[in-house]
Amino acid sequence: MDGHLQLPPDAARIDAMLDRLGEVTVRTGLNLAENQELVITAPLDAVPLVRRITEHAYRAGASLVTTFFTDEVTRLARFQHAPDAAFDTAATWLADGVANAFRGGAARLAITGEDPALLAGQDPDRVARANRANARANQAALGLITNFAVNWNIVACATPSWARTLFPNDPEPVAVARLWDAIFAASRLDGPDPVAAWREHDQALHARAALLNHANFGALHFRGPGTDLTVGLAEGHAWLGGSGVAANGITCIPNIPTEEVFTTPHKDRVEGHVRSSKPLSYQGTLIDGIEVRFEAGRIVDAHANRGEAVLERVLGTDDGARRLGEVALVPHSSPISRSGLLFQNTLFDENAASHIALGQAYATCMHGSKGLDAAALGARGANSSLIHIDWMIGSGEIDVDGITQGGERQPLMRAGEWC
Amino acid sequence: MDGHLQLPPDAARIDAMLDRLGEVTVRTGLNLAENQELVITAPLDAVPLVRRITEHAYRAGASLVTTFFTDEVTRLARFQHAPDAAFDTAATWLADGVANAFRGGAARLAITGEDPALLAGQDPDRVARANRANARANQAALGLITNFAVNWNIVACATPSWARTLFPNDPEPVAVARLWDAIFAASRLDGPDPVAAWREHDQALHARAALLNHANFGALHFRGPGTDLTVGLAEGHAWLGGSGVAANGITCIPNIPTEEVFTTPHKDRVEGHVRSSKPLSYQGTLIDGIEVRFEAGRIVDAHANRGEAVLERVLGTDDGARRLGEVALVPHSSPISRSGLLFQNTLFDENAASHIALGQAYATCMHGSKGLDAAALGARGANSSLIHIDWMIGSGEIDVDGITQGGERQPLMRAGEWC
Ligand SMILES: [Zn+2]
Ligand SMILES: [Zn+2]
Ligand SMILES: [Zn+2]
Ligand SMILES: [Zn+2]
Repeated sequence: MDGHLQLPPDAARIDAMLDRLGEVTVRTGLNLAENQELVITAPLDAVPLVRRITEHAYRAGASLVTTFFTDEVTRLARFQHAPDAAFDTAATWLADGVANAFRGGAARLAITGEDPALLAGQDPDRVARANRANARANQAALGLITNFAVNWNIVACATPSWARTLFPNDPEPVAVARLWDAIFAASRLDGPDPVAAWREHDQALHARAALLNHANFGALHFRGPGTDLTVGLAEGHAWLGGSGVAANGITCIPNIPTEEVFTTPHKDRVEGHVRSSKPLSYQGTLIDGIEVRFEAGRIVDAHANRGEAVLERVLGTDDGARRLGEVALVPHSSPISRSGLLFQNTLFDENAASHIALGQAYATCMHGSKGLDAAALGARGANSSLIHIDWMIGSGEIDVDGITQGGERQPLMRAGEWC
Repeated sequence: MDGHLQLPPDAARIDAMLDRLGEVTVRTGLNLAENQELVITAPLDAVPLVRRITEHAYRAGASLVTTFFTDEVTRLARFQHAPDAAFDTAATWLADGVANAFRGGAARLAITGEDPALLAGQDPDRVARANRANARANQAALGLITNFAVNWNIVACATPSWARTLFPNDPEPVAVARLWDAIFAASRLDGPDPVAAWREHDQALHARAALLNHANFGALHFRGPGTDLTVGLAEGHAWLGGSGVAANGITCIPNIPTEEVFTTPHKDRVEGHVRSSKPLSYQGTLIDGIEVRFEAGRIVDAHANRGEAVLERVLGTDDGARRLGEVALVPHSSPISRSGLLFQNTLFDENAASHIALGQAYATCMHGSKGLDAAALGARGANSSLIHIDWMIGSGEIDVDGITQGGERQPLMRAGEWC
């Protein structure tokens, strides 16, 4: 035996893994440049992770790291105590300031970890109004991110509130440790050299996207229980996956984890019906058992077993909210899918299954999009909306075909796996 | 005996007092209006106080409360790990965003509680560069506050790092509780009705300012050990104290605590020498034993027993940094002075003693200043600078005379007390 003071094994292990996550976030996720500013948003419970990331950022040469911490307690207090008129107000002055930071070259990191059930008991009308006000305020800043003006990244932090929602029967420290372990595994951090593991994984995603780009399909066809959906692809759509090059010249991996290859559907060329394969956690509400029908790209009929009212509000945000802005393919055997866990967080759940997204398209998923405005992109089929909400339609029971521009079928996935 | 579970007496008492501080901050300090936004800056350790304040703000009808938490650990990490070029960078995009919030009508609350010794071991040149970059970035936002565009307030939070610096021999929880008690007493929160106590105290400060405004002195003369200083007053200077009316029509008390009546010196009419009566804690450095000599309003000679290099850097910020922007009278018997504690925080220490401020003048301390620009105010003697730094020159050994426009002397203070 020795007399050294030791942290409990979990705490020491999590501490060491936090440092790995900090390094992978800065080096692999953001690929932060010398003298670059970094803007972070994070839950208050992410303070230890933010400190690791900030230290790695300064060591990598960052000029200034600015973190906006968000507090679930005060967010909830607003719904409990503020006057009704408050819910159309958003901090536009702040969102515009952040947009200016991006225009000035700052990188962006979002640390996700919010309690998916935080606003479950609140008036859905107020929640929707607050979300709409936020979406409007953030349109310019979000536009710079979706147009890939700067290097950016999203990673996750196991917060106590999120962990309690996922593991309600465990004591809080156990729940948090379980969630951390799931995040570390999904984020490919548990091997001997995470930075190298990410390089390899990224190359595999690039190879998959290159094959799909070469094929230049006119549409994808999804078939399975409750689903018979043809997703037309935008003219000049580009498949992306893993790392990309931002307009500032920096190669980064915007999501950690990421398992998807994804592209832009044609907003007017989606036909048929589709059933969700996993629940969608949307800003505090779980929407489950979604079934929708598309005609000429537009959702004309929508149901959900749970959260239908919230789904209806989402679809009512604007015309683009009823159309698709993304389609993504993820094999059923992805590490996140294999974990068997519903994270109730898009960063993870969208990487567990093939999915589609309602709302805004990514201009970067269009060939030759540089310099084109929303109207020009829209003429080629790219959708516009205040929202971008991914929901899962893939599973081990789903087959996907590519349909060539000449109308021929090519099998892409069978029973959820790449052919 | 009863079987109720109880918090330790200190925790329960501090908790109840935090709620009082929250109420006084929102009702008395800010006088927050229905549907007004509120922008808070706060140390991370102030989370429990921020939550109390935010709840009171929403109950008072706030539309949105946005808090920027600052983290001493990451602030220090920048000095330890960032490249040298980093220290001229500031978040101008954020400061401009906050300025836009004020232009849009948001109230401002600063919660102070930083460790006065945080940057004591860091390269003073880097500290000065970072401070200058921050001051430049914040010029527009700070201008809106000094010009009283909106209701604003500063209150304090007993953070562990501040408490440890003040009470290094106590265990941390004891140090924090002692600092809280000092803050509560200084902030006049321990009586049965703090809101009423503040109303009464405010009336006394207004009465004192009215007398001084009626006298319309041409200068003040300070005399005591090491001090023989004549401070000419700006033409049309106005004495203020306690509450004031912001340009948005809201009456607020910008500092809690506040004990001072203060006005605008003439930037070209300060003559003689003055010795500081208490140390000045300036952004991480304690500057003690300051002795300066003024000629025609300008500091021509400056010494300090401790922190002289930092003082020299401060004076070198710009031309206005060597001239006065404020002179304030505080009786030696103020509650803060009686506490005998050097808080190493301007909010408290400036209210323990009469003081002068280097740098920017408050336009609100000039009669008829509305609509006048800096040049017009400067022609009447109001100083301009990137900085505004108060330092204490009053004590139980200082006499102050008012000198009328006709040149006659009137005793104002003897041995630090009002005549
Ligand atoms: Zn996706
Ligand atoms: Zn998406
Ligand atoms: Zn003052
Ligand atoms: Zn001052």
